[in-house]
Amino acid sequence: MPDRAQWTDSHCPTARAADIIGDRWSLLIVRDAFDGASRFSQFQRNLGIAKNILTDRLKALVEQGIFEVRSNVQGTRNEYVLTERGMDLFVVITSLRQWGERHAFDDGEPHSTLMDDTTGDPVPGLRLVNARKIDLNPTNTHVEKVMDGSNMDIAHDPIRR
Amino acid sequence: MPDRAQWTDSHCPTARAADIIGDRWSLLIVRDAFDGASRFSQFQRNLGIAKNILTDRLKALVEQGIFEVRSNVQGTRNEYVLTERGMDLFVVITSLRQWGERHAFDDGEPHSTLMDDTTGDPVPGLRLVNARKIDLNPTNTHVEKVMDGSNMDIAHDPIRR
Repeated sequence: MPDRAQWTDSHCPTARAADIIGDRWSLLIVRDAFDGASRFSQFQRNLGIAKNILTDRLKALVEQGIFEVRSNVQGTRNEYVLTERGMDLFVVITSLRQWGERHAFDDGEPHSTLMDDTTGDPVPGLRLVNARKIDLNPTNTHVEKVMDGSNMDIAHDPIRR
Repeated sequence: MPDRAQWTDSHCPTARAADIIGDRWSLLIVRDAFDGASRFSQFQRNLGIAKNILTDRLKALVEQGIFEVRSNVQGTRNEYVLTERGMDLFVVITSLRQWGERHAFDDGEPHSTLMDDTTGDPVPGLRLVNARKIDLNPTNTHVEKVMDGSNMDIAHDPIRR
């Protein structure tokens, strides 16, 4: 992980996550891993990405603990396998997918669909709902910030999130 | 929106979303807007971002329909206001935040927290759950791809998502 001095905004989990994974290629490498890709050549072919960029992104993702590198049985090549931390990006990738489905396609324009194997249906949309089944959104939530190392409530103050 | 030829992977909603918003600064600009920021100077101060980069990112976010530009009543300055499409990124930003909370902080290290105004509690974690209350993850879902304009089932085939 970057040390404290290198984070864009050290107290904000969104900012730390964006520092780690907030990059188009990194997101799509993880997407491909969810879809079964594990070898450099697979990522390269799927993404049509320059080799030096792919090398750079995979190295960073390994350093950040998103992937671990394993040798195949023959020891002839490396495989990039998602760690638990990497697997936990599934909701992030799915939230992007679902936003894309809603907002990045014209009506009727074909797109791939994430299917639920247990029902055979498309997966339902992610919703942020509390225990009372109230949908949470920017208007009924606020960020409790950290000040001098302790948490402090500042509703809708954009100085530091 | 970019036209078809410019998308990294035209049939994949995740890839289109990543093309639009898969950038650290863009994600953090949207985060700040959820937190109440609307003026160039606010984003600039919050993010400590170079003015030319902020100008570039705001321009792209307006072109992509994430923000709309409004003049204040006096007509003296522009405000960047999230559109409906932009507001709908709340789940994306929240998924990043929650992943960051779980994986980007040491135990006991302070971080800001998204609070539910309706209960006073921290917001619950996003879960991808189907109607049968089964948690969905990469092992019990698959992507139905688009081939020649129509959808086609290819489980765990990483060629094209």
